[in-house]
Amino acid sequence: MKKRLFTPGPTPIPETVMLKMAEPIIHHRNPEFNEILTRVNKNLKVLFQTEQPVLTLTASGTGGVESTFVSLFSPGDTIIAANGGKFGERWVKMPKAFGMNVVEIKVEWGKAPTAEQVLAALKANPAAKAVYLVHSETSTGAATDVKTLAKLIRENSNALVCVDGITAVGAHEMRFDEWGIDVCVTGSQKGLMIPPGLAFVALSQRAVAAMESSKMPRFYFDLKKALKSYQDNDTPWTPAVSLVIGVDAALQQIVQEGMENVWARHQRLANAIRAGVTGAGLKLFSEFPSYAVTPVWVPEGVEWKKFNKTLKGKYGITIAGGQDEYKDRIFRISHLGYYDELDMITMIGALELTLKECGHSFELGAGVKALLQSLASR
Amino acid sequence: MKKRLFTPGPTPIPETVMLKMAEPIIHHRNPEFNEILTRVNKNLKVLFQTEQPVLTLTASGTGGVESTFVSLFSPGDTIIAANGGKFGERWVKMPKAFGMNVVEIKVEWGKAPTAEQVLAALKANPAAKAVYLVHSETSTGAATDVKTLAKLIRENSNALVCVDGITAVGAHEMRFDEWGIDVCVTGSQKGLMIPPGLAFVALSQRAVAAMESSKMPRFYFDLKKALKSYQDNDTPWTPAVSLVIGVDAALQQIVQEGMENVWARHQRLANAIRAGVTGAGLKLFSEFPSYAVTPVWVPEGVEWKKFNKTLKGKYGITIAGGQDEYKDRIFRISHLGYYDELDMITMIGALELTLKECGHSFELGAGVKALLQSLASR
Repeated sequence: MKKRLFTPGPTPIPETVMLKMAEPIIHHRNPEFNEILTRVNKNLKVLFQTEQPVLTLTASGTGGVESTFVSLFSPGDTIIAANGGKFGERWVKMPKAFGMNVVEIKVEWGKAPTAEQVLAALKANPAAKAVYLVHSETSTGAATDVKTLAKLIRENSNALVCVDGITAVGAHEMRFDEWGIDVCVTGSQKGLMIPPGLAFVALSQRAVAAMESSKMPRFYFDLKKALKSYQDNDTPWTPAVSLVIGVDAALQQIVQEGMENVWARHQRLANAIRAGVTGAGLKLFSEFPSYAVTPVWVPEGVEWKKFNKTLKGKYGITIAGGQDEYKDRIFRISHLGYYDELDMITMIGALELTLKECGHSFELGAGVKALLQSLASR
Repeated sequence: MKKRLFTPGPTPIPETVMLKMAEPIIHHRNPEFNEILTRVNKNLKVLFQTEQPVLTLTASGTGGVESTFVSLFSPGDTIIAANGGKFGERWVKMPKAFGMNVVEIKVEWGKAPTAEQVLAALKANPAAKAVYLVHSETSTGAATDVKTLAKLIRENSNALVCVDGITAVGAHEMRFDEWGIDVCVTGSQKGLMIPPGLAFVALSQRAVAAMESSKMPRFYFDLKKALKSYQDNDTPWTPAVSLVIGVDAALQQIVQEGMENVWARHQRLANAIRAGVTGAGLKLFSEFPSYAVTPVWVPEGVEWKKFNKTLKGKYGITIAGGQDEYKDRIFRISHLGYYDELDMITMIGALELTLKECGHSFELGAGVKALLQSLASR
């Protein structure tokens, strides 16, 4: 059976990238590898729309975010973190584990933090060293208006603007320099279309300056060390060589398509999949939908387990289920990374067949029709 | 030009493993991946010769060692660390970064810590919580007698026996349970023959118990969290999926060959390469040579840079140079991982041709002859 992945990380890997990673491995202190890392470093700046350094760490995205807490702050420092899902929740727990004081902006699942909430938190905590925002909350599919909030934070405080861009970078417009972002983290298995194992951390000059006064114990995730090695297109510890080779190939593909085209494609696919889903009579979960992933309510009368088993067992399609209180109640279709318009038709076609088998009452073909109309109308 | 890697990590990857990793990626919460991780967990026990858990982390070996410091100890705790090279040095610096008190056993480069040194350190520091040993010090090619020292530590203290097995596991006999080891760490790009990006940490029951009282701030490298997920053959954060798939294939190959055969092969290859090197009139650097890597003095009259450039440029062979004060003075040939006897002939043949071109005076063919004699005599 053909297998198709529609999960928000790992996302599908272009065949050319897979094969590149399967070539005989090279040593990371070789001039050839230095050449690769030099090109990766250059192209990461395009991805993040920045002239600032973007560091490559061997870790998952969670490790990437940890590197920012332990390298920029000190125990006892206050930060503000918006929590509207599984990942927002993690960025509340993590700094606490390192002795930081965390002011939480509680956001209902499916919604995004508002300007009013952020402003109130800043006013109440003038000493806050940073505000952490999740650009695209994978668990709920909700997108945060980073552009507006970054401006607001800059205008009303000295807090650093720190962005979890893990499922957003490469899907959503994000202009690191222009928007005044100080920290942005992403992972390799998302918009970058390669397997998990690398994290990328962009740092503004203000963020680099903050590292000077940080008193957090750290070693592996010390961004000062990483930045020093970065100046020579090197890494302090052995990097995940094959993944760096993969991200080199993937970044070249992204840069060739052009960032604005990549963003526009994600928006187009997100709109199409939503037209398809609602066309088949289902309801969207998120109020501010991300272009990376579309969460959908499991329709009444349909049992999630049977639905998922059919979709996977009969059609070879893997999607993601709901988490925590939304387990068995929502499902999530990803369109982040290596997808095109025809992949969306495949997905909605299989969804319709599966819904029919699970007893959902609707006009078969209505989802695909709505999807095609969305694609044709652009 | 054919390219051949003789470096102590990354080491060459079996073609079948490369291709396995290049297959379409799967999701880490899929039953298929759970099956893979279940098999990996089972086979890691064979590799480490243990019935205890061996955890898989997405990080380089350095991250694996960090996980043991931050998960088993508390700031202010005393540990003893043997430092006889670049890696021993790192395990002195790292715990200090986390506020630990480190008693350093200074070992001359090329030598290994003695029983007397370890005993003296234990007597002088009865409160020491652990002794960290480097089984095979990659920078010097020196092997530590872990079996003897582990017994000695167990008999004379309550300190945990912690082993950096990064370039030793898979090359040197190592029996985690039988020898009374409490912690052993290795990396993926060494004896495990896959690209860098994974670390593996074996933990004894004493080590697991030590985690209960640890007060170190941590999150990503929290082995308590990793151990909890491990019980379900899962990981707390997104693992480096393609590397786990690779290590599954590599471990099956290792288990099929059999641990005692794998260790014997490494010993045979190490002896052969040393016969070849000395046959060509060169001198070995290390007094207690590891079976993973052979460091050799650059002979008088030969310039390292020219030698290395010829070996790489004309014969496509990458070896490792010396580090720190031994930069340009020694070189290191690795025979760790996916090598057989014929690879050693290739290596010494190229070495002889290169030495000749660099003006070293010796009888061409004497190295290969000695190597063949070593192989024939077993």
